[in-house]
Amino acid sequence: ETMEVTLKTEAEAGASGFSVKGGGNEGIFIKKVLKESPASKIFSLREGDQLLSATIFFDNIKYEDALKILQYSEPYRVQFSLKRKIVVQEEIEHPTAQYKKERISQVDI
Amino acid sequence: ETMEVTLKTEAEAGASGFSVKGGGNEGIFIKKVLKESPASKIFSLREGDQLLSATIFFDNIKYEDALKILQYSEPYRVQFSLKRKIVVQEEIEHPTAQYKKERISQVDI
Repeated sequence: ETMEVTLKTEAEAGASGFSVKGGGNEGIFIKKVLKESPASKIFSLREGDQLLSATIFFDNIKYEDALKILQYSEPYRVQFSLKRKIVVQEEIEHPTAQYKKERISQVDI
Repeated sequence: ETMEVTLKTEAEAGASGFSVKGGGNEGIFIKKVLKESPASKIFSLREGDQLLSATIFFDNIKYEDALKILQYSEPYRVQFSLKRKIVVQEEIEHPTAQYKKERISQVDI
């Protein structure tokens, strides 16, 4: 008897030591995992796992590599996590304004 | 007065119409967003946004593109979402076994 589970790996750098197969409708699957590799020891990848998605963190990434990743992923479903500076309008001073975001920086305007 | 917020975009295909700058310690930032492009209309990207991460979904992805994305992201922090078939041991039948995962398929063994 088998069951299917969905799981998230650790978020770490250096995901080496595995190969994939498949593509298209079929999906992408882990083909081979080298013993003692980061893929095995850190990410706990197993042969036969289906790769549903990969979240790539852009901290300390080379411009060229970020560009390539964005270019290759363009045809596919993607979700970005963003940090945005927003100008807080005067209304925020109003006692009725409800702001749940934490104010983390303050700049004179 | 400004504040910083972290936000997630829609998860959609076809994130075109924007360019990035930066890299390394500095981080990756949105440099330019074309008006009326998917980057603007679907993903709501704005110039100056910092790209913290991108989650790429591997449904219907070409093998070669998945490979490139995995290769380019290897040096950087990455987190995978996986689907795994697990064999359910006899112990699951035991009334004391606690399994929170939903059983979604059943196969004779």
